[in-house]
Amino acid sequence: MSTSWLDLPADHPFGLAALPYGVFSTDDPDLRRVGVRIGDQVLDAGLAAEHAGMESGASWTQPSLNDFLSRGPHAWAAARQWLVEVLSDPAHRDAVEPHLLPLSAVTMHLPFEVADYVDFYASEQHATNVGRIFRPDGQALTPNWKHLPIGYHGRAGTVVVSGTDVIRPAGQRRAPTDPAPVFGPSVRLDIEAELGFVVGGATRIGSRVGVDEADDHLFGVVLLNDWSARDIQAWEYVPLGPFLGKSFCTSISAWVLPMEALRDARVALPGQDPEPLPYLHGADDAATYGLDIHCEVRLNGTLISSPDYAGMYWSPTQMLAHLSVNGASLRDGDLFGSGTISGSGPGTRGSLLELTWNGRDPLELPDGKRTYLEDGDVVTMSGWAPGPGGSRVGLGEVSGRVVAG
Amino acid sequence: MSTSWLDLPADHPFGLAALPYGVFSTDDPDLRRVGVRIGDQVLDAGLAAEHAGMESGASWTQPSLNDFLSRGPHAWAAARQWLVEVLSDPAHRDAVEPHLLPLSAVTMHLPFEVADYVDFYASEQHATNVGRIFRPDGQALTPNWKHLPIGYHGRAGTVVVSGTDVIRPAGQRRAPTDPAPVFGPSVRLDIEAELGFVVGGATRIGSRVGVDEADDHLFGVVLLNDWSARDIQAWEYVPLGPFLGKSFCTSISAWVLPMEALRDARVALPGQDPEPLPYLHGADDAATYGLDIHCEVRLNGTLISSPDYAGMYWSPTQMLAHLSVNGASLRDGDLFGSGTISGSGPGTRGSLLELTWNGRDPLELPDGKRTYLEDGDVVTMSGWAPGPGGSRVGLGEVSGRVVAG
Repeated sequence: MSTSWLDLPADHPFGLAALPYGVFSTDDPDLRRVGVRIGDQVLDAGLAAEHAGMESGASWTQPSLNDFLSRGPHAWAAARQWLVEVLSDPAHRDAVEPHLLPLSAVTMHLPFEVADYVDFYASEQHATNVGRIFRPDGQALTPNWKHLPIGYHGRAGTVVVSGTDVIRPAGQRRAPTDPAPVFGPSVRLDIEAELGFVVGGATRIGSRVGVDEADDHLFGVVLLNDWSARDIQAWEYVPLGPFLGKSFCTSISAWVLPMEALRDARVALPGQDPEPLPYLHGADDAATYGLDIHCEVRLNGTLISSPDYAGMYWSPTQMLAHLSVNGASLRDGDLFGSGTISGSGPGTRGSLLELTWNGRDPLELPDGKRTYLEDGDVVTMSGWAPGPGGSRVGLGEVSGRVVAG
Repeated sequence: MSTSWLDLPADHPFGLAALPYGVFSTDDPDLRRVGVRIGDQVLDAGLAAEHAGMESGASWTQPSLNDFLSRGPHAWAAARQWLVEVLSDPAHRDAVEPHLLPLSAVTMHLPFEVADYVDFYASEQHATNVGRIFRPDGQALTPNWKHLPIGYHGRAGTVVVSGTDVIRPAGQRRAPTDPAPVFGPSVRLDIEAELGFVVGGATRIGSRVGVDEADDHLFGVVLLNDWSARDIQAWEYVPLGPFLGKSFCTSISAWVLPMEALRDARVALPGQDPEPLPYLHGADDAATYGLDIHCEVRLNGTLISSPDYAGMYWSPTQMLAHLSVNGASLRDGDLFGSGTISGSGPGTRGSLLELTWNGRDPLELPDGKRTYLEDGDVVTMSGWAPGPGGSRVGLGEVSGRVVAG
């Protein structure tokens, strides 16, 4: 890996091996454009690229990443190669340095316009825990779970950028002991710690993206918090799935880490048994990779969980192949979540539902016990992955504060 | 009602009482703009409005209705009033007539960019039939059904305009007798005859649109065919709801009929028992209206069903109030479907699942028996509603031909 003339510490999570993309503004919030994070600075990528005659420059003066997403994998690779070059070769320093801004001087916005948002359910441990809690008398996993990556569509219009307040939703709930449903603010507001995969390279309706082609459409990854009102969800979700229990808000990190930055984080899946149908296979096992991403979830600053993405059952390429196998087209800016990342240990579960076993085992925090979220609570999820030569590649963070509705 | 200088027959379904909006092009498919249907002609609304200095004119030169949708109910009403005036008062004839094109000279496109697409399940008879077929050992209606309008998010990116071929989806299915799931083209491809409601006047996250405010955001209505692969759906939908069984294609009519054109079609709901929670009430019963819309479904030209929308349990205003009660924001171009329109008689059911009782009772068509759709089948849904003075207001049609994948 090259070193940068920016003279970053070798272990900086936003060195040349990361280079995530975001959308920022400075004084005028309406003047949004694409930025690239390097260290604790933001490169005004459009301006820098314009000076260099870089092909993707026009995409980077846009107020969202969608145009860049539309350009496809060759453009993404060329852009990344150019960024590494101009940030490492001192010959470019004079041209590039004027376009670096301190992080503290910028406001980050939603990095792309979300086209369709799908949420999967790819952690066996999470699905097992939820099954045990919600359907104690049945099999924890439904019969289809190991045959296909279960997913459903969520609300694209309420995906927000990290730092946006999360307004406690109201809705109907009916506990088993209630004679009739009641209405009010959710009393079981939860988190779901997930990764979100950002899709580019639109396809036509009727076409499919196979497991082996999926990487051409997987642009990058964000941290994602799928806020969930468990009481609303439990009452509404049979038979057509979650709706208002999820649609009030989904938070994503401001920085989209290119999949290319996760080359050194690819690992084998834990194993799939029974073997999935052929359309969920690649030409070889390398196409169905997992990702060695380490997450941390903090509630008001206290670490409450450390979920590891490497334990997920279904690969991102399988999820994308499944999503499109019926001929559904992809659009630039499609987003799909992995589902809650939960490991087998109690300290690795990605939701309060599981961490407290639906409120039975409250968490002990410095400011008191906690089952579900209270107004004022701040939840922050962060993540990192191994980079080249023992370095770390940062995924940044996604954070949100709960406020009363 | 005024009469038009166009000298239309009094019973024409696209007279001055209808005036639906669509998006059309002539020679260059990329030169799309808003048109208004009158009789069997299309008014190039942007050009006509420009000549008259009409305020909404700028919206009508756009390639979708979204900008017009963003202007809200006062602009919608003013635009409609202006259209009625220039199409009825002969003084405007010389200025307007040059901007009328025969329907045969235009190509219709998707009338708006779909923001989020939600599908409800508002027919008691349909939900009962589906429950009896899919869950024969349980209660036909789930315990929540009469307390809230059940809905879920669908795929906005695969909503297509009437006339678009429907490509038979492939996917996993597993019949109860199958030892393992199999993969292939759906063998139970179905329709769902619905209305779709088109939303305008975006709202902020955290706000709600109550039943009494819903009309300010309900711009208009389309006919909607929610194509459904029953075999894929049955295997995948527990526990998170329909996904690939629906996401391959949803067809809507090219013409959006303004809700204003349905003033004379408002009827009381059939009755709600138990009484819903207060957030699903309006100030008076008039806010929770039904719509006296008559639909017809034809398969290769043969009438197979005549569903009446007036029998639906939940009102459009209740569906919109429910959708946003958790603080979910609305965007211009949001679309929500009513769910399949089914009456109590066999000739009024809006899906083949119900019409053939999941294949048990095939339909007899001139070209043979039919349980589910075969390649080459053309399904056309049309609709009309009572207009002023005993006239009819047309909803046009939504049509699609099934082709092999």
